[in-house]
Amino acid sequence: MKDWNDSTGRSSLELPPEEMRRLGYRVVDLIVDRWTNLREEPAWQGGTRRELEPLLSGPPPEEGQDPDAVLQRVVDDVLPRAGRIDHPRFFAFIPSSPTWPSVLGDMLATGFNIFQGTGLESAGPSQVELVVIDWFRDWLGFPKEGGGILTSGGSAANLVALVTGREWAGNPPNPVLYVSDQGHSSLERAARIIGLPAGNVRKIPTDETFRIDVALLQENVAKDRAAGMDPLWVCSNAGATNTVAIDPLADIATLAEKESLWFHVDGAYGGFAVLAPGQKEAFLGIERADSVTLDPHKWLFQPYETGCLLVRDTQLLEAAFRIFPEYLQDTALGKEHVNFADRGVQLTRGFRALKVWMSLQMLGLKAFREGIQAGIDHAREAEKYIQRSPVLEMMGPGSLGIVCFRFRHPDEDGSPELLEALNLRIQEEIVGSGLAMMSSTRLRGEFSLRLSILNYRSTWQDVRQTLEAVEAIGQRLSEVRGGS
Amino acid sequence: MKDWNDSTGRSSLELPPEEMRRLGYRVVDLIVDRWTNLREEPAWQGGTRRELEPLLSGPPPEEGQDPDAVLQRVVDDVLPRAGRIDHPRFFAFIPSSPTWPSVLGDMLATGFNIFQGTGLESAGPSQVELVVIDWFRDWLGFPKEGGGILTSGGSAANLVALVTGREWAGNPPNPVLYVSDQGHSSLERAARIIGLPAGNVRKIPTDETFRIDVALLQENVAKDRAAGMDPLWVCSNAGATNTVAIDPLADIATLAEKESLWFHVDGAYGGFAVLAPGQKEAFLGIERADSVTLDPHKWLFQPYETGCLLVRDTQLLEAAFRIFPEYLQDTALGKEHVNFADRGVQLTRGFRALKVWMSLQMLGLKAFREGIQAGIDHAREAEKYIQRSPVLEMMGPGSLGIVCFRFRHPDEDGSPELLEALNLRIQEEIVGSGLAMMSSTRLRGEFSLRLSILNYRSTWQDVRQTLEAVEAIGQRLSEVRGGS
Repeated sequence: MKDWNDSTGRSSLELPPEEMRRLGYRVVDLIVDRWTNLREEPAWQGGTRRELEPLLSGPPPEEGQDPDAVLQRVVDDVLPRAGRIDHPRFFAFIPSSPTWPSVLGDMLATGFNIFQGTGLESAGPSQVELVVIDWFRDWLGFPKEGGGILTSGGSAANLVALVTGREWAGNPPNPVLYVSDQGHSSLERAARIIGLPAGNVRKIPTDETFRIDVALLQENVAKDRAAGMDPLWVCSNAGATNTVAIDPLADIATLAEKESLWFHVDGAYGGFAVLAPGQKEAFLGIERADSVTLDPHKWLFQPYETGCLLVRDTQLLEAAFRIFPEYLQDTALGKEHVNFADRGVQLTRGFRALKVWMSLQMLGLKAFREGIQAGIDHAREAEKYIQRSPVLEMMGPGSLGIVCFRFRHPDEDGSPELLEALNLRIQEEIVGSGLAMMSSTRLRGEFSLRLSILNYRSTWQDVRQTLEAVEAIGQRLSEVRGGS
Repeated sequence: MKDWNDSTGRSSLELPPEEMRRLGYRVVDLIVDRWTNLREEPAWQGGTRRELEPLLSGPPPEEGQDPDAVLQRVVDDVLPRAGRIDHPRFFAFIPSSPTWPSVLGDMLATGFNIFQGTGLESAGPSQVELVVIDWFRDWLGFPKEGGGILTSGGSAANLVALVTGREWAGNPPNPVLYVSDQGHSSLERAARIIGLPAGNVRKIPTDETFRIDVALLQENVAKDRAAGMDPLWVCSNAGATNTVAIDPLADIATLAEKESLWFHVDGAYGGFAVLAPGQKEAFLGIERADSVTLDPHKWLFQPYETGCLLVRDTQLLEAAFRIFPEYLQDTALGKEHVNFADRGVQLTRGFRALKVWMSLQMLGLKAFREGIQAGIDHAREAEKYIQRSPVLEMMGPGSLGIVCFRFRHPDEDGSPELLEALNLRIQEEIVGSGLAMMSSTRLRGEFSLRLSILNYRSTWQDVRQTLEAVEAIGQRLSEVRGGS
């Protein structure tokens, strides 16, 4: 048999320890330097396949390349060509800004190669996941029987919720899903994945504040029941993606109890706002949900991918997902262990809980409360600014960290089409300049700019600078148009 | 408005750069020290909830704690209480042993906070994922129209494959899934998730080498078709979890083409063995599959979570998963971009491709071929050892990196129950001593010890030491029994 190791006993896949350490330090330096210079970098950089293919394509080399040269290619050609989602003026979509202790937690979980699928293979890590889930459960006011699992994100959590609800209901033949017309697209996708025909999904209209109309929900349920369908899940928002609307959760809970529906709350965006002083009231009723989606990688300042599904009754989650093959016979250790693989889609799982645990321990809960509150404060201040501005208008009620608005010159009446073209142009100029990243949406059919302010690094100065840029560019474009 | 930042402009969630750097270096040191001492550590350490709860439970502190003390708790109380899946004598389940460049890749992806869901937000990272998927596609001999997505692992990949196949077939009312009786449990779970009744899943018996019996498969399809069912997917193994059996892929491909079935190959364990010299032949027919699951976190030496689904026709994958909500209107950029969120379950995705790209660039493909070949060589050498040993017997045909065997004293006839009790006891002693981690399974109903040899650090010495320990402990236990 050929001896695959060299004279030092190392495989060709191994590096000498001092080289590992040197490259590790260099990677730490690259990350710290990036974080330190983040505000001066553009908030977004793109690239096309035509530009990038020549830089990055081609087969892998047969022989290893100089590691520093490879690192340099990554730093020059790959990593900058992206949104800087944690940039203090990245306000598009839903920002994410991990804390340093959470990054350290991910490094340790990877470097220690933790497999967090079964209790046998990860007793310590499983205990940490249980503890972190207990924290979330307590923050939401869930009962002690509640539990859950950390997932890749909100999409997986919503999928797991629908499957758990269906198993709980005994797999009825004609299940109907009720979801807010502001519900996240991942629910639609989860419905497709679980095999629900599009005709079994009811989008429930929302009121002028983008909250589910509970009377209409009730009507729909009654009509479906009368038609022999099986009303099964109602999915509501605790912070809708578009507008961060929080549905009337207590009213929905009451209806769900009466109608024996599985009451799911998608709090991926907004759920952790319960930690901010005075916000808990807006979420009243969430503690009566059967399941809640939370995304620690959003407003709990964790790296991707960190989602969570909490359920009121952990047994229902395990009943829905447990599978027990022969080659895992050694992993059944009874109640002394939790196999997190029994609670969701994945068997192999990384150790997602460590980053959450480490960042809460190192920074303390108070810092998180303040970080969330800062985002809410900045959004409300932006709202005031827009209301005072002669050229800006709010496009929906502000809520949590979201501001939907547009530029509109007072001298111009502007058709929706013209306003849309103008605002799109403003958005393009701001994003193109690198100053800030903004996204847009449609509210009741009308085009709206959208700022989402969640980053602990964002200051009021960052927000104001972005609003001022919208005003200035809009004014200039209006004048050009006015003068032509 | 309260100013949330301190006099240095920092939020309470931020650390000074020099403190970030110091802690980052310390984490690198902790990981490098662990890797350097790995062989001297026990291959597995456990713990019960009763032991761990007092160490780790309780609410998070309101104020931040000393970061070095928190790190020390993690290193003392959390990380050691786990299987060391990358230990050179960890042969249980399916081992995983990431290379150092792949760990660096994960650190960079986390530290640069890459969101790899849409091309708009990650042009460079998306290009890297395309390149890595092209490599895999070429290694398997897939056509150029083939493509895919990196997933959390094999479970997600198998789920995505079933959904894609169902959409391709137009969602027939009574779909039937055919899966080897050696198929992975994640297929059974995926079937449950997509809403397939248990009665629509056929487990196809395997022959004495644990390969699908194609004649029986054909019979089942014909019978189902005659009964008005809709035969839809056939899932075969390219390295079954139990035994690493490789199904007769070319014959199944022919049947699938004739019967218009979606031909899925689960190559999570074995797929990358095509890179080892002379192995490609065993996988003949895989290039005709409609979809293939691969797990780079297994035999491509990547950290968790790195799975992959390859499909023959990328358009089918996107047709199955694309959803387009209003708040993503800015992300539609035409053919110049790929939105990986259109190809699977997740919208938010981390940058999984970087670790693969960096480790292939830094180490070269040849090192990976050698690393895989070393595992195969060690397994075949173990087989020879067992065949020569007077007290060990093979329990199935050896294949790739797997060896299924048991202890059996030549002077004892031993009922299956006695042999099972004896071998379980041997396993417990070896695992308890920390020497090695082994798992067990059942083959044709009989208990079998199982070694899985995939780690590039494992030497023949590691394997032999473990086999010798089985012999020695077995002999001692037999003598005690014989003498009683």
